[in-house]
Amino acid sequence: MQDDKATVIFQPSGRRGEVPKDITLIEASRLLGVDIESLCGEKKVCGKCIVRIEDGFYAKYNIESSPNHLSEWQEEEAKFINAENRKKGYRLGCCAKVEGDVLVFVPEESRAGKQVVSKAARDINIFHDPAVCVYYIELKKPSFDEPTGDFERLCEGLAREYSLTNLRIDIQALRALPGALRDGDWKVTVSVWNQTEIIRVRPGKTEDYFGIAIDIGTTTVAGYMCNLRTMEVVDTVSMMNPQCKYGEDVMARITYHMTTPDGLKRMSEDIIEGLNTLISKAVEATHPPKKKVKKKNNDDDSELTEWTEKHEEGKTYYRLSLDDIEDVTIGCNTAMHHILLQLDPQFVSLAPFPPVNHCSLDIRARDLGLQINPSANIFVLPNEAGFVGADNVGVLIAEEPYKTTDYQLIIDIGTNGELVLGNRDKLISSSCATGPALEGAQLSFGMRAAPGAIERIKIDPETHEVDYKVIGREAWLKFSAPEEMKTKGICGSGILDVLAELYVAGVIDKSGVFSENQKSNRCRINPDSNQPEFVLAWANETSIKRDVVINQKDLRQIQLAKGALYAGCKLMMRRMGLDKIDKVKIAGAFGTHVNKQKALIMGLFPDCEVEKILGVGNAAGDGCRAALLDRRKRIEANWVSRNVEYIELTVEEDFEKQFMQAMQIPHMKDEFPHLEEIVPPEILHQKVKKKRRTKN
Amino acid sequence: MQDDKATVIFQPSGRRGEVPKDITLIEASRLLGVDIESLCGEKKVCGKCIVRIEDGFYAKYNIESSPNHLSEWQEEEAKFINAENRKKGYRLGCCAKVEGDVLVFVPEESRAGKQVVSKAARDINIFHDPAVCVYYIELKKPSFDEPTGDFERLCEGLAREYSLTNLRIDIQALRALPGALRDGDWKVTVSVWNQTEIIRVRPGKTEDYFGIAIDIGTTTVAGYMCNLRTMEVVDTVSMMNPQCKYGEDVMARITYHMTTPDGLKRMSEDIIEGLNTLISKAVEATHPPKKKVKKKNNDDDSELTEWTEKHEEGKTYYRLSLDDIEDVTIGCNTAMHHILLQLDPQFVSLAPFPPVNHCSLDIRARDLGLQINPSANIFVLPNEAGFVGADNVGVLIAEEPYKTTDYQLIIDIGTNGELVLGNRDKLISSSCATGPALEGAQLSFGMRAAPGAIERIKIDPETHEVDYKVIGREAWLKFSAPEEMKTKGICGSGILDVLAELYVAGVIDKSGVFSENQKSNRCRINPDSNQPEFVLAWANETSIKRDVVINQKDLRQIQLAKGALYAGCKLMMRRMGLDKIDKVKIAGAFGTHVNKQKALIMGLFPDCEVEKILGVGNAAGDGCRAALLDRRKRIEANWVSRNVEYIELTVEEDFEKQFMQAMQIPHMKDEFPHLEEIVPPEILHQKVKKKRRTKN
Repeated sequence: MQDDKATVIFQPSGRRGEVPKDITLIEASRLLGVDIESLCGEKKVCGKCIVRIEDGFYAKYNIESSPNHLSEWQEEEAKFINAENRKKGYRLGCCAKVEGDVLVFVPEESRAGKQVVSKAARDINIFHDPAVCVYYIELKKPSFDEPTGDFERLCEGLAREYSLTNLRIDIQALRALPGALRDGDWKVTVSVWNQTEIIRVRPGKTEDYFGIAIDIGTTTVAGYMCNLRTMEVVDTVSMMNPQCKYGEDVMARITYHMTTPDGLKRMSEDIIEGLNTLISKAVEATHPPKKKVKKKNNDDDSELTEWTEKHEEGKTYYRLSLDDIEDVTIGCNTAMHHILLQLDPQFVSLAPFPPVNHCSLDIRARDLGLQINPSANIFVLPNEAGFVGADNVGVLIAEEPYKTTDYQLIIDIGTNGELVLGNRDKLISSSCATGPALEGAQLSFGMRAAPGAIERIKIDPETHEVDYKVIGREAWLKFSAPEEMKTKGICGSGILDVLAELYVAGVIDKSGVFSENQKSNRCRINPDSNQPEFVLAWANETSIKRDVVINQKDLRQIQLAKGALYAGCKLMMRRMGLDKIDKVKIAGAFGTHVNKQKALIMGLFPDCEVEKILGVGNAAGDGCRAALLDRRKRIEANWVSRNVEYIELTVEEDFEKQFMQAMQIPHMKDEFPHLEEIVPPEILHQKVKKKRRTKN
Repeated sequence: MQDDKATVIFQPSGRRGEVPKDITLIEASRLLGVDIESLCGEKKVCGKCIVRIEDGFYAKYNIESSPNHLSEWQEEEAKFINAENRKKGYRLGCCAKVEGDVLVFVPEESRAGKQVVSKAARDINIFHDPAVCVYYIELKKPSFDEPTGDFERLCEGLAREYSLTNLRIDIQALRALPGALRDGDWKVTVSVWNQTEIIRVRPGKTEDYFGIAIDIGTTTVAGYMCNLRTMEVVDTVSMMNPQCKYGEDVMARITYHMTTPDGLKRMSEDIIEGLNTLISKAVEATHPPKKKVKKKNNDDDSELTEWTEKHEEGKTYYRLSLDDIEDVTIGCNTAMHHILLQLDPQFVSLAPFPPVNHCSLDIRARDLGLQINPSANIFVLPNEAGFVGADNVGVLIAEEPYKTTDYQLIIDIGTNGELVLGNRDKLISSSCATGPALEGAQLSFGMRAAPGAIERIKIDPETHEVDYKVIGREAWLKFSAPEEMKTKGICGSGILDVLAELYVAGVIDKSGVFSENQKSNRCRINPDSNQPEFVLAWANETSIKRDVVINQKDLRQIQLAKGALYAGCKLMMRRMGLDKIDKVKIAGAFGTHVNKQKALIMGLFPDCEVEKILGVGNAAGDGCRAALLDRRKRIEANWVSRNVEYIELTVEEDFEKQFMQAMQIPHMKDEFPHLEEIVPPEILHQKVKKKRRTKN
């Protein structure tokens, strides 16, 4: 490394690069295409650009990071960072200058350009029967004739009016009971969990009550806050999984646990802290934002600044507190499940891969450290087997393949891909390590689905010219768009497009290697790496002032991911004795945005009628939401988790061979009758010379 | 106050006095008759005399206490008191010298002369059906054919071998599960609570398992650690209730809660901390004590000091850890119950006296802060009504008056006295504030039942000479006894004797006033207080080098207590329409030591056949133990708590008059046919002149 440069890595995006020394972290973030919030234009007054510097040697990146590798602490920073956080390595991005290698963690709240998640969580058919219900009741005051205690008085009332009997009460709710009864003049609203336990008593009458369904992915976490009375999704929130710094995939995190004392605890605490931040965000969103208004002072004509609430028309502001979250459901894969709950995850990674538990768990919020109503219960969905965990159970109870005669293949795309195949007679499942490439992470210009991300792409086969659509703006704004809407990178749905487009246009061949027959200057050799790359967007179209490209290494990452999925699908079909599937459902954070045709062209799964391919969005999240709103779905979840046969793909015969063949586009040997009319025959039926294939 | 003197108050004994400045706290404790441990003879090397100085103004005592009212910190103290405890006000009694008023708390472990509790907890008839049971099971390792998860594998085994189904598991036990299964080579011992929840999994086979039954009195706390397999009481431990510093009786503590922010939390934390100390003590007692042995070094003939275990013959050492305590039952009166659980106790003190709850509660140990097995459940016995709480339910399930045809009167003597009257047709209960006098507290020379306490007393009616028995030594040792066995004060059972003896011997009259006809120099006027007093033990018989006396104020305290009890009994008999009781049972910490005849003479309750008076010891503690060892007793407890009719004595007609009449010995008007042959007629039938009675 040159002496005047230093390596800076930003987490959780993973963007890295060498930057000149003595620039601020904010400046470094711009060079590397990372968005850090800065409302004041780096005047050191808004405190929005707080970041944390990790301390220690990071083998994964081969760098020694230290808060000492930054310029001295400035007094402006103390306004926003207290002594304790300063010790933990927090700095203001606009103050701290790079003097050596640093690994910078950008907390969710300091990230500009929030992720765009399909907000209006899909309309799925859910019956209304939440585990938590509220009951309003009016009681008589104690008298010498009836001096019964508060709890028994309440129980008598609930039995009389609602036929609720044999109720328990959590000690925390019991502590609040005498005050609530007297404050409400013996009229209270009672929250009852599973018709067995009182978890909250509030004075007076309250009708709305709330819960949150959380889907913890290896890379991203999504939360759906619901009004449990109306079933309405009040808010959708999401964030990167803070465990990403310990490794991208589940195996890396299990290894971290096995090699680091307290590693499990540390990872668990990180995700719990993350969930608390996420939930706070959802709760804050139920309050109207505040804005500054200038007013004239009537006395002396001077100007006064006041904060007033800014109400959005037609929006209901519930003005909730954390205590108002009374139920939570969580779905995640087995490794994330075990790490979250501090259950030893090592055995799930060792043959014969037994998890610590399959069944669902009800865990008191305070036992897990979730800062919601302390008496609330967290329902953690059950695990299937191996790495196929509660998130897949979520997909199953949302999609209900066990209710159809059609053979469905459900592909849940995430850092860990999960597959289900079957119908009402039989269901099998498996998992494959796809890595985070299909989610837009770990590619040179990969990013989350946020403003500035390419989400659709089209390459002209004649000219190899590129047309694309960026999240947050109309196509015609390509050059004149405001800075924050300009192109920055490519997100998941764009990545699914790009392989198909490059292949159909002939930019790359069946094996994923750049072909010799290029029709534009977009395909070029990168002078630094000496590797070929293809320019998706020129520097002047971007906000990062650099060409957004996809290179050979990126293509290989995508091929590895899709190859693993395809091989998995094929081995499962073999197990079921099927040579054709009736329906393919694509789930995953971007599931709703998938271009079905391009997914088939890139060879994400075996041939299928295009009309029978469906994007089903975040089905795992939908399942968590179903379990939150309908407690019979919880029973269904436990049933289905024990009635899916799990296939361990890696021990299947010729797995390696299948995987290798599936790396090609769409596949080395398999036929795709449904692509005959879409893909030009010279492309679809091209042969790859052995020599070429092994070259890269 | 003189400038060269300062007020020192020792807690929890409540002993107080003015002492010369510049003496050490140990020296002050001797002057005031308080026992502080000091193994090294104040050489500042044993660290046994650690005490804590309370900080702040104590209205109850009208003193301003502060750690600054002591001499400077000495370097020897740092060996035994860490920085954190130093901040909390801890000092070594042999180092710190008095320079101003101080309120000194002597922790249990620093108190010399441990309380003597009837160790061999009474043999009561208990069926063996503990709530926690252990099961040993051998499982098959997971294989590709059976890759079932750890928890489900365990459940399958428990269902197969023990027909246990639908088991839950606590998250903490689940965390330990994978390690225990593999450490034990798939052979484990499982603890199951109430046949519903797994609370512990240990590798290998363990047969014995343990629980503790705790009786929390207003003044004293007793714990019975039991082997849940054999039902044997492994150890009995006791201590003063650390809440005593907030007030002697329940009303004082409720007032403290109502007048002090965070007062409830503080009192709750104090008792929890106390319970943790008590449980630690019980656990430590299962390890053999260590002793120093000198050995010759074979190499160079020098002497080596080694620690070896000193085994007591015939004793089993279970060598337990805190984690081995897997079940706890707790009984206490309603006020102690509410304060322990941080439930607002104010309404139980206001008409119509409703408690926050009646029913029993199962509370997770970690939710209460008890440092035992964190997955264990604490069973808190149910409350009856008003101040008659779970401790009285304990008495009921131990004595089972609801199973007899006899009318029984059960008197539970404590700081709060509780009364039950009835048979299998009907039971009524009530409570009365007796104060701590009958337990030996708050009298000039009152003390706990520890070595040095007068437990039996006899006064010669002819000479007024005194003969007494002291706990821990034979009578003939009165003068030549070793220092630590010499007389120090008088405990509960001695106090019950003293009123009867003084009365029968004619030292005091029916109204409790010293009579004019004294036969010895033991009755005298105290020169400081100018009040009459009677010398029970001369200074040369004591270890405190002062005469142990009982004065007029002490006598009044005892009369108030016994008067409240007697009036209560009588009002209850009136309610039941009874003019005579078949059986009287006296319960309380010293219940087994009660001299039945003298209890009748002093007028603790209405006339009864002496043979039908029984001392039943700590029946409340026995009930807690029954609930620990037999879970059906828990159901019985809930049943009986709702089927006893509670009488609020203070609102009964002519309560004041009854109370006033019952203050006399044995009673102002009632006849005592069963005393005719025991008490000389001129004593029994004496008339007290109005003029005399109002004089004091």
